[in-house]
Amino acid sequence: MPSNTASPVTSEVEIRVRYAETDQMKVVHHRNYLVWCELGRTDLIRKLGTSYAEIEKQGILLAVVEANLRYHAPARYDDRIRVRTTLSAARSRSVTFDYTIENADTGEKLVTARTMLASINGEGKLVSMPEHMRRALEAAIA
Amino acid sequence: MPSNTASPVTSEVEIRVRYAETDQMKVVHHRNYLVWCELGRTDLIRKLGTSYAEIEKQGILLAVVEANLRYHAPARYDDRIRVRTTLSAARSRSVTFDYTIENADTGEKLVTARTMLASINGEGKLVSMPEHMRRALEAAIA
Amino acid sequence: MPSNTASPVTSEVEIRVRYAETDQMKVVHHRNYLVWCELGRTDLIRKLGTSYAEIEKQGILLAVVEANLRYHAPARYDDRIRVRTTLSAARSRSVTFDYTIENADTGEKLVTARTMLASINGEGKLVSMPEHMRRALEAAIA
Amino acid sequence: MPSNTASPVTSEVEIRVRYAETDQMKVVHHRNYLVWCELGRTDLIRKLGTSYAEIEKQGILLAVVEANLRYHAPARYDDRIRVRTTLSAARSRSVTFDYTIENADTGEKLVTARTMLASINGEGKLVSMPEHMRRALEAAIA
Repeated sequence: MPSNTASPVTSEVEIRVRYAETDQMKVVHHRNYLVWCELGRTDLIRKLGTSYAEIEKQGILLAVVEANLRYHAPARYDDRIRVRTTLSAARSRSVTFDYTIENADTGEKLVTARTMLASINGEGKLVSMPEHMRRALEAAIA
Repeated sequence: MPSNTASPVTSEVEIRVRYAETDQMKVVHHRNYLVWCELGRTDLIRKLGTSYAEIEKQGILLAVVEANLRYHAPARYDDRIRVRTTLSAARSRSVTFDYTIENADTGEKLVTARTMLASINGEGKLVSMPEHMRRALEAAIA
Repeated sequence: MPSNTASPVTSEVEIRVRYAETDQMKVVHHRNYLVWCELGRTDLIRKLGTSYAEIEKQGILLAVVEANLRYHAPARYDDRIRVRTTLSAARSRSVTFDYTIENADTGEKLVTARTMLASINGEGKLVSMPEHMRRALEAAIA
Repeated sequence: MPSNTASPVTSEVEIRVRYAETDQMKVVHHRNYLVWCELGRTDLIRKLGTSYAEIEKQGILLAVVEANLRYHAPARYDDRIRVRTTLSAARSRSVTFDYTIENADTGEKLVTARTMLASINGEGKLVSMPEHMRRALEAAIA
């Protein structure tokens, strides 16, 4: 993860709502926004010059330890959705992401969320992230 | 929904972790706890003498507007899980549930969560719950 | 749905495997390929000049009545995947799609599948598709 | 896996449809029946005196290589569902399960399915099942 990112990094990912993501309320089931947040932070990490798949190969897992979501308006089947992700904190053993999920066509805000992830090893023990990774994350904080 | 519930109501649901609920971290993917919370409040509502399916037939939808989860320890495939649900607030147009999710065999606490749900109609507008329903919910608060 | 499609229509959709789609076997859980097939036929229908969302608004639902899948090799987290969809049959009340799902980088064949969908109305009764829709589907058969 | 099972083994599992399993067609999304089949064969394997979790710990994975489903009628939210599972074939490196999924209250047949699973090791190579396991499976064929 090169530390050539000296300014805040924002990821913007666009997706289209899948039929399988709806429920009988005819809107996206609320659990799926956590999946979209995951797409957002995956993309942000890629922008830092590595990939989460690569991080796992190095034996570091980022496990969600806290998630907070506010649902403002529903997404519907076939809507185009934008997930905007920023980093709000990076410590040696945890990292916090903020998300704004909106309708990509109307700009309507649908969900705001924050997740904190802990850096653990394959046995589930808290471990410090590699120094270069922590520095890259810190440099990218919004 | 009969109002014959004059004391706090607690629901306890037991489930077994499904293979499809795991991810490559070899633990339950974090989105699924929201599904388990849904099972918990469905059961609690049934204990009040109605069912969420029945409520929807009457034109009232309970939509999640806020969700907060803390992940303490992971659940794994085939684990027996207990979801304990209580009511912590009931207003005319919203209701708040608290959840403790634990390993049913060891008692280990896995996740604590709170969700607030809003009472809406088929068009997504906030509406007051029927009086008898709100009273039953209030009487059941922990 | 304009009938200006006089030759076979093939859809190719590219997606990236989501973390939430993996299971503890460290590959994509087999149910998710059905979701990807759904993305494929949604895209193919869009290529015919309409959208499945639009079809549902007209009161026609396409319900899966048969699905057959062969799993040749696993997809893994973060892989780029290509879903190639063609139409193999169109009748007044049913339509059959064929899918080839492959690794977009290596070309390796992962899954081949076929689904038959029935045309039903909101009450679940079999109904004939509108004539222009059936003709557009027929013209697009591979 | 003790080989004390000298006659056909049938598993019957009962579940209740989860809200998260529905889609905007107001029925269970078709991918979820594959998850229910998984519950069925997990239970059948448990009846043979072992568990799939135990089998994986011994280094054997059972990967779905073929799935065929026919959808006869839809399941709906909160329905009680019965999954009946039998074994129809067992070879040294594959095993085939048959499923009948029905409404537990009305007996209506919803889905019939068959899945073939291959015995693989952690690297995804086909391997023979341990002899006692294959014998137990063979003895349980319907």
